[in-house]
Amino acid sequence: MSLTASHKKSLRVALAGLGNVGGGTLKLLQERSDSFETSCGRAIKVVAVCAKGRTRSRAFDLTGIDFEPDAMKLAVRDDVDVVCEMIGGSQGIARALCEESLRQGKSVVTANKALLAAHGIELAALAEKYGGQLKFEAAVGGGIPVIKTMREALAGNRMIAVQGIMNGTCNYILSHMDKEGGSFDAALKEAQHLGYAEADPSADIDGYDTAHKLCILSTLAFGCLPDLSNVAIEGIGQVSPIDFAYARDLGYSLKMIGYARRHALGLEQRVGPVLVPHTAPFATVDDVMNAIQLDGDAVGPLVLIGQGAGSRATASAVIGDLVDLARGNKVNPWGRPVVDLEKAKILPQNERTGRWYLRLQLSDQAGVLAEIASILRDEAISIQSLIQVGKQVKRAVSVIIVTHETNEARLRAALAKIAGLDTVWEEPVCLRIDSNKD
Amino acid sequence: MSLTASHKKSLRVALAGLGNVGGGTLKLLQERSDSFETSCGRAIKVVAVCAKGRTRSRAFDLTGIDFEPDAMKLAVRDDVDVVCEMIGGSQGIARALCEESLRQGKSVVTANKALLAAHGIELAALAEKYGGQLKFEAAVGGGIPVIKTMREALAGNRMIAVQGIMNGTCNYILSHMDKEGGSFDAALKEAQHLGYAEADPSADIDGYDTAHKLCILSTLAFGCLPDLSNVAIEGIGQVSPIDFAYARDLGYSLKMIGYARRHALGLEQRVGPVLVPHTAPFATVDDVMNAIQLDGDAVGPLVLIGQGAGSRATASAVIGDLVDLARGNKVNPWGRPVVDLEKAKILPQNERTGRWYLRLQLSDQAGVLAEIASILRDEAISIQSLIQVGKQVKRAVSVIIVTHETNEARLRAALAKIAGLDTVWEEPVCLRIDSNKD
Repeated sequence: MSLTASHKKSLRVALAGLGNVGGGTLKLLQERSDSFETSCGRAIKVVAVCAKGRTRSRAFDLTGIDFEPDAMKLAVRDDVDVVCEMIGGSQGIARALCEESLRQGKSVVTANKALLAAHGIELAALAEKYGGQLKFEAAVGGGIPVIKTMREALAGNRMIAVQGIMNGTCNYILSHMDKEGGSFDAALKEAQHLGYAEADPSADIDGYDTAHKLCILSTLAFGCLPDLSNVAIEGIGQVSPIDFAYARDLGYSLKMIGYARRHALGLEQRVGPVLVPHTAPFATVDDVMNAIQLDGDAVGPLVLIGQGAGSRATASAVIGDLVDLARGNKVNPWGRPVVDLEKAKILPQNERTGRWYLRLQLSDQAGVLAEIASILRDEAISIQSLIQVGKQVKRAVSVIIVTHETNEARLRAALAKIAGLDTVWEEPVCLRIDSNKD
Repeated sequence: MSLTASHKKSLRVALAGLGNVGGGTLKLLQERSDSFETSCGRAIKVVAVCAKGRTRSRAFDLTGIDFEPDAMKLAVRDDVDVVCEMIGGSQGIARALCEESLRQGKSVVTANKALLAAHGIELAALAEKYGGQLKFEAAVGGGIPVIKTMREALAGNRMIAVQGIMNGTCNYILSHMDKEGGSFDAALKEAQHLGYAEADPSADIDGYDTAHKLCILSTLAFGCLPDLSNVAIEGIGQVSPIDFAYARDLGYSLKMIGYARRHALGLEQRVGPVLVPHTAPFATVDDVMNAIQLDGDAVGPLVLIGQGAGSRATASAVIGDLVDLARGNKVNPWGRPVVDLEKAKILPQNERTGRWYLRLQLSDQAGVLAEIASILRDEAISIQSLIQVGKQVKRAVSVIIVTHETNEARLRAALAKIAGLDTVWEEPVCLRIDSNKD
């Protein structure tokens, strides 16, 4: 039977980049080399690698593997079926290598979310035109098979929403602040010390990495063209230690969430810190773990939790893609032909709704709360709870307000008015509350 | 490009059974009929159905679909590519239909875990011999794509363990007892009232349904032949309301868990109630939701949570399988050829270990605790905590003991001795504690 015919030719792989992901993939492929004849009916064989300088490659056993100094040469080698682009960056050599490999009819496996968010459609079009496959399981959620799940397992669903904790750096920082009670800066330093955050952490903590991943998931879920400019992005830099304590008392954990939902009036896409109820699976996802929830109209909510980064977990995802290729399995990169993707209608800003946690620092004097309450009432914002938490003579008091479901534009308008009051000592803190399990 | 060629012939499907799963599949296929040309490059078309009597079929729009009174005829129709067996039962017509369909070179999709646990290997051998595919995503975890994840996404992993909440009836009963505080019988009645439990619930509450599913997951994970006789099975019938309250205070929820792990000395497979820490994702999985955790040596722990039953969620899984078939994607039913499956070496009983929660009802008199403690010491069982929770004159007191990691055989020996003491009023309650996140 053809699936088990061991005389089938090996799947011949070139690895461009031997860093965290590329190096991990090479090592895991070598560790597992005996297993692919059984699981795929043929071997998976690394024939060539490329890495910056030869030095890096000395950490690996390259017996029987060509070292190719010029990455672009991998795209044109006759003895290569698949090029794994593990270099990174949305431009330059990574992009050129993927394009040329696909033009040569080869398949490409990549973990490069920035490249996919920016040029994933052109790359998919090349794959569809020249007959190669474009696979990118490792680009979102590390070892979590969210791409395969959406592209294949949930193909019978009309997707309603996708959301998740998709950035390990942010999740580590928020978990650390929650557990240790320290400042944002202290948590960031600890994350950098442990290698969970880069020297320049802005792409992570400002939300752009999550936004790239969200665009990839939106395209798979809703068949829309990726559109980074229509993601509302908020970073986690403004979160204060005190908010974790108040949130905990209210039954919430604070998580950095990427969220996309198809509404009747258009697509909503946002990235930012969100209060998640303790009873929801996301609340149990700490440190560098990731979690993604997919809501389909048939399957209902489906939550996947796993290691969002790390050399071996990411290699697991890359090898999952290679196994699909070795088995000869095919699927359009975005689950449907590129020509069928459409520009999404965007949910107008003034149609966005939500529930919010507000923390105000107010003068402790008569009439202040009445003033706040009337501003909220004038914007038709209904209050679920209001708690005054600190009271010291001649000092500010903290007031925590939790709103009912309300219009975001009106909330922002109210906050602007509140921030302008003389009795308000600091910029109000405003955190979205997840309405998932309520 | 071939993936999008719309002139490709439709995938022609026969549905045997129009109950919960079969009926849901038919309806969802009809709802989504426009989408498969886009996602698969060809239509998925139901050409024939079979159901007990014609009455049932009247709930469906069967325009353009043949009603076939004899299910076995579906296997031999020339105009059928795939037979969906949605009849149920591990013998009789379900088994005969699957066998004959595969012998005819057709593919088979089934949700029948009892059939797969008992005859899944013979069926896979027929698929491999005659060139059809055997797909069964809906057999475990309803809408959760655990089969695809293990068979494809995690193919680069050596699996260490699989475990999960796989039975909605049990999970509903345990959640209900936890939240409402009522008895097992009251929770079971409520589950029956809501249609979550059968009139005869024994297959669910005694653990056999979970054991069937565990056998399927073990075979996929470890490449071993399914072996129901080597699953240690314990039901949930003995769980008392009081234990939920004590467990909660200790930081645990009680869940019905199927668990399989590959140890150096052999495979451990067990089904039974387990105390799960509140900080673990499983603790958030309530009512009829299911959850499965897969531990691979590369991916680490991967948790999937979703609807374990229900007509539409299960139909989502069936259609995922049909989409794979429509795309022409192939994989051995058990992830590797049947000839490569092996009989598992079983972990000897006296090598099993764990941590336990013990509840003893003791006479409130001097020296009783010392007697218990010395029995435990003699069996080398180390105590993590001991709490005396009730104290009434001339009545029994409850003592809750939590053990450190210990040998199960020695624990059972100690319990037998303890149960024989005059000062012990009731059979000791003994619940395993999950050591997952400790």
